[in-house]
Amino acid sequence: MSTIIIGGAGFIGSKLTRHFLQRGNNVLVIDNLCRGRREYIESLPGQERLTFVHADASDTQAVLKICAQYHARFPVDAVWHLAANSDIPAGIADASVDLRDTFMTTYAVLEAMKTLGLKKLIFASSSAVYGDHGPDVLLREDTGPLLPISNYGAMKLASEALISAAAESWLEHSWIFRFPNVVGVPATHGVILDFIRKLKVTPGKLDVLGNGTQQKAYLHADELVEAMLFLADKDSGKCNLYNIGPDDAGCRVADIATTVVERVSPGAQILFGTEGRGWVGDVPKFRYSVDKAAALGWKPRFSSLQAVRRAVDEIALQEGILL
Amino acid sequence: MSTIIIGGAGFIGSKLTRHFLQRGNNVLVIDNLCRGRREYIESLPGQERLTFVHADASDTQAVLKICAQYHARFPVDAVWHLAANSDIPAGIADASVDLRDTFMTTYAVLEAMKTLGLKKLIFASSSAVYGDHGPDVLLREDTGPLLPISNYGAMKLASEALISAAAESWLEHSWIFRFPNVVGVPATHGVILDFIRKLKVTPGKLDVLGNGTQQKAYLHADELVEAMLFLADKDSGKCNLYNIGPDDAGCRVADIATTVVERVSPGAQILFGTEGRGWVGDVPKFRYSVDKAAALGWKPRFSSLQAVRRAVDEIALQEGILL
Repeated sequence: MSTIIIGGAGFIGSKLTRHFLQRGNNVLVIDNLCRGRREYIESLPGQERLTFVHADASDTQAVLKICAQYHARFPVDAVWHLAANSDIPAGIADASVDLRDTFMTTYAVLEAMKTLGLKKLIFASSSAVYGDHGPDVLLREDTGPLLPISNYGAMKLASEALISAAAESWLEHSWIFRFPNVVGVPATHGVILDFIRKLKVTPGKLDVLGNGTQQKAYLHADELVEAMLFLADKDSGKCNLYNIGPDDAGCRVADIATTVVERVSPGAQILFGTEGRGWVGDVPKFRYSVDKAAALGWKPRFSSLQAVRRAVDEIALQEGILL
Repeated sequence: MSTIIIGGAGFIGSKLTRHFLQRGNNVLVIDNLCRGRREYIESLPGQERLTFVHADASDTQAVLKICAQYHARFPVDAVWHLAANSDIPAGIADASVDLRDTFMTTYAVLEAMKTLGLKKLIFASSSAVYGDHGPDVLLREDTGPLLPISNYGAMKLASEALISAAAESWLEHSWIFRFPNVVGVPATHGVILDFIRKLKVTPGKLDVLGNGTQQKAYLHADELVEAMLFLADKDSGKCNLYNIGPDDAGCRVADIATTVVERVSPGAQILFGTEGRGWVGDVPKFRYSVDKAAALGWKPRFSSLQAVRRAVDEIALQEGILL
């Protein structure tokens, strides 16, 4: 069995690459190494079954050519698409970033799959597609309207829409997983990494964007990967849409700041901003329903705060801090 | 007051061009003349206040340049974006059609508006964003999930998402109008025009795609334009989302075929196919709620069948058939 993983050298993608190599699959990774790194995947067990191509997955012609050559040698069973811009404020400042990295990657992957007759796609979407429904709406897969407040969320929704249309005409099996903030290692971005790096520079104080009351669901990357594999195995409709996340109301940015300070730089002063959100396009509070995945037998093991605590220790280690 | 109308030489766009010229506005029309025609707008009253540019509205640089030059002479108040691919099956066969004409036009228009500081956008979306919820779900603006079944619907949803994200960061006023099948003149495409043209070639028989049971809401274009102008005047939130349509369960393709035959070629035999939908990506039956627009005081005047009957007579005349 062979698997293609777009963005397979990144934070979440590299975990999937590890999984499929361990399972004995051949794996083709296409990654632009913007956030991903070769070192995340180059010493994995089963390395001899890994093909890595450094390429821009938004380049329709390049993706088709790479996949066609690989598929001719190793017939491909499924494509996982994890590539996206992960710097949400950058995508708001310049819409071309999410157009290219978050949306055109999906377009290029679908075009290549259609041409090559590949019929199974698993797509990493996001809670950002929902936009801001306020703290009282429990976000379910059928919640509407979908009015994203960032170009990242918009281009994830656009990607979902294109997959849904493909599922109607030629794509036989597709999974769209919407997940909230994901934490863990190898950390390439995100609030925990930001806090730890700030404290390395100024150990006595931590500046926080926003007033710290932003409250969100956090999921550990290991748990996310397990959930995706579990759900992609269970359901097999044409277009399967699932929220994946913890089963709680999330934790506050202030709690994350406190956890990081306690573990990494005890006694540091935490300085909050005045805004209720960290940046334009940030959804300050949301509640997330994972009942649909639970009905198939998946249950989150960690709470948001447990996921954060575990990730803080892992990321501190990654950044060379001895705890 | 000056207005930019993207797709302003098309079926619906040309009616808006007429309206704004009549009202005394300066109007810039950008149209690729794929379905639109210069003759639809070149003899309108107020012609001296019309600037027409034949250009591809998906070309980001071109749109910016044209709008910048116009805005420097005639400061622009609002932009109406009506341009899209209207051949849904063509967009399913080749995804690049809707990518370019339905989505990249929106991207280019938003980029130009952001650069020029234009803060008011009215966008023509579609019931196709809802996908197929079956005949029993009343489609409201907050209905989910949004899983379109055509690339046309996908790229309309992608456009909505990008507008919604822009509304969060820089776009001050936006309206997204979702409408069902729209009929009237100048007809450039659609089932009534198809039927009339088929009967001109073979007056004795009419071949219908699908078994005729597809049942959809039809809105007359004159009524649509009135509704958009009314609603864009009433509401003024950052991102205003409205269904516009008739207040009924629609009429069947068989009813349209019968109406056309009665008026254009009495006695012709109607030959139906066997499929429940006309083509892949066709939503065979849907029910549409217009309660949100009604709450602001808008009411449709015609039923679906009345709109169709009126349009049949108008399109027959357009096609040179004396009734």
